Amino acid sequence: VRAELLAVGDELLVGDIVNGNAAWLGQQLTTRGIEVVASTVVGDDVDRIAAAVRAAFDRAGTVVVTGGIGPTQDDLTRAALARAAGVELRRDADLEAGLRARFTALRRDVPEMNYRQADMPEGATPIPNVRGTAPGVRFELLGGVAYALPGVPHEMQQMFTDHVLPDVVERAGDPAVTVTRVIRTAGMWESAVADSLSEQVSRCQAEGRVRVAFLASGGQTRVKLSCSAPTRAEALEILSTEEEQARAALGVGVYGSEDDTLEQVVLALLRDRGETVGVAESLTGGLLGATLSAPEGASSTFRGGIVSYATEMKAALLGVPEDVLERHGAVSGETAEAMAAGVRDRLDATYGLALTGVAGPGEQEGKPVGTVHVGLAGPDVVLSRALRLPGDRALVRTYACVSAMNVLRLHLLDALPAS
Amino acid sequence: VRAELLAVGDELLVGDIVNGNAAWLGQQLTTRGIEVVASTVVGDDVDRIAAAVRAAFDRAGTVVVTGGIGPTQDDLTRAALARAAGVELRRDADLEAGLRARFTALRRDVPEMNYRQADMPEGATPIPNVRGTAPGVRFELLGGVAYALPGVPHEMQQMFTDHVLPDVVERAGDPAVTVTRVIRTAGMWESAVADSLSEQVSRCQAEGRVRVAFLASGGQTRVKLSCSAPTRAEALEILSTEEEQARAALGVGVYGSEDDTLEQVVLALLRDRGETVGVAESLTGGLLGATLSAPEGASSTFRGGIVSYATEMKAALLGVPEDVLERHGAVSGETAEAMAAGVRDRLDATYGLALTGVAGPGEQEGKPVGTVHVGLAGPDVVLSRALRLPGDRALVRTYACVSAMNVLRLHLLDALPAS
Repeated sequence: VRAELLAVGDELLVGDIVNGNAAWLGQQLTTRGIEVVASTVVGDDVDRIAAAVRAAFDRAGTVVVTGGIGPTQDDLTRAALARAAGVELRRDADLEAGLRARFTALRRDVPEMNYRQADMPEGATPIPNVRGTAPGVRFELLGGVAYALPGVPHEMQQMFTDHVLPDVVERAGDPAVTVTRVIRTAGMWESAVADSLSEQVSRCQAEGRVRVAFLASGGQTRVKLSCSAPTRAEALEILSTEEEQARAALGVGVYGSEDDTLEQVVLALLRDRGETVGVAESLTGGLLGATLSAPEGASSTFRGGIVSYATEMKAALLGVPEDVLERHGAVSGETAEAMAAGVRDRLDATYGLALTGVAGPGEQEGKPVGTVHVGLAGPDVVLSRALRLPGDRALVRTYACVSAMNVLRLHLLDALPAS
Repeated sequence: VRAELLAVGDELLVGDIVNGNAAWLGQQLTTRGIEVVASTVVGDDVDRIAAAVRAAFDRAGTVVVTGGIGPTQDDLTRAALARAAGVELRRDADLEAGLRARFTALRRDVPEMNYRQADMPEGATPIPNVRGTAPGVRFELLGGVAYALPGVPHEMQQMFTDHVLPDVVERAGDPAVTVTRVIRTAGMWESAVADSLSEQVSRCQAEGRVRVAFLASGGQTRVKLSCSAPTRAEALEILSTEEEQARAALGVGVYGSEDDTLEQVVLALLRDRGETVGVAESLTGGLLGATLSAPEGASSTFRGGIVSYATEMKAALLGVPEDVLERHGAVSGETAEAMAAGVRDRLDATYGLALTGVAGPGEQEGKPVGTVHVGLAGPDVVLSRALRLPGDRALVRTYACVSAMNVLRLHLLDALPAS
């Protein structure tokens, strides 16, 4: 059971917007066992859209088109579907009446052009759009079915979920189900994750039942295990064995699964112990606090922070001793520890977590870009860890936040390496 | 002069990642007058990749392929290019020696499989990759030229900029040039921007020379003007007239152009005056400081911040009077002003900028989600502005930061509305 995605719009080709619809639709279809064989973007040109529709039906029986069904002259998907099938467009009287009623209710006097949205290729049926005015199109042609949906994500998603996916799944009969599991790691680069799992990956490739993918972003690596089987139960059973083995190999590198975030996991560990955290930041300028306060309900655990961006603020706001700054520099393990202890005290938090380092573009105190120290102060601990992070200014800042949260996580689990 | 984009990777089709490379490449090619006619994603399957390459050359003379050139068995772009052209893959001895030297220098003992990256279709030439190990491929086939680049964005972008774009432009000779201008606004929702420019947009549509697009994201709206003309000079002349008119209509809503960011503009305004800023944050947890410290060179202007996430920290760390908190609440204009004054004093900054509000998911102090107060304290000013922001927790936090920076910007320009 195969599907193709076709997105229509010059704005996608020229890069004004990213084709997030394709990623969303790919997820939706894949998890229901529908293989997506290709995804294409074409501009607002009726011949090119029609050619792309025909090409898609060479490879797949289901084509989901997004974009080009609005009211303007640039909206050509309806006409292209008609052309691909060799039929005419016809104004649907019921749709037109519905649009008129809708615009009247909104007290909008719309140009006549808006009623182009009531045009349907002969033989097509409309797909209701409860969040916008443009109806979708379900159209059987070239031995398969095309579904045309708006490009506006929230309209498209509602229509796909309510009308398209159920139809596709029913047409597919009882396809193989694909089940996926995501394991989330922190503190391990992608190569280290891949090394830890290399034997398992080789075996899975040989057996051909489970696919293993590594997805690195934002200083974290996800391991995604996918399994297709005739039933969900079978797929889950196969996956659970593989997941267990992968988790064992990755050890404390694993912080969560599926949509967990590192910050949620750290906050939950603290919350379970009735503890709190405050942050002291230099190179990250507030990013660590922003990250730890992003999850809902953070306020029970995250106390706040002090951003001592200017070096003298480390002494004034955090009480870092002047002689520590002079002897070791602002970018040092000693300063990170003093920052952590200072913020713990000032915010009356169980833990103080600190970051100091060089984000770049230039070096600082003779220390190269990517030099970062994490400081941690707690009820019976003051420690620091030195890191050398790769990447540009933005990446170094992101990696620094992940590293700091991971130091706290490992400490809470009594699993922080001594190094 | 036409180009097509082809991205290779199962992870794109199943929606694990969004095809941001296509948007970036689309921008790069379009602004140099190269029309992008289609953009396709296919999975890790040598036959499907080869078929997609052949199909792309039916429509375009330049095909930029991203992904599938790494060292693993899933990396099939090289083999697919060879198959599309009907030639063999050959191991390039120089490339192999280079990879060996590189891995040795990194003290990495890599599996033999890594040297697959030295395989080239017969007749192809490598494209240097200074940021990673996988060389790119320049390959003349089917009457055009294919360029294969890594899927990792920062490697791909460097190689495209250094090697691919100059080659494509030289091959294109002297195409019609498309010139774009981006005008950046803050403090105006997309509908307000569109309303301000509605007459101009109608005229441009009627004249057909300049395309106007509105792009809203992160609480800001960009206006993109595009013009194609035989020469760059002609396009620029047409655009500059339109840009001037648009800027006049948008007034102080315009903060910059092209790749400017609001934080850069605010920092530059302060730097020009020899002034500094410190921030006090509540609902944003550090995001305002993270944003203001993101640009290179922020340290001359951004002093740091205090994140008083827990309500009692507003008194303890910022000196907000207890009776202000009791009488008006933590979410109030009075508290925002006291926070701004407190952080200005404690960070010895010219301006204190403060945010307090309700990010959600639930209301606070009986105030609904989206209630936000911006406080500003300066040499002879203490003021606050009340906002009601739409969206979920993440959007409210983002919009709050944009709003705070915009209040400071407008104040520095002596253009802050009295409201």
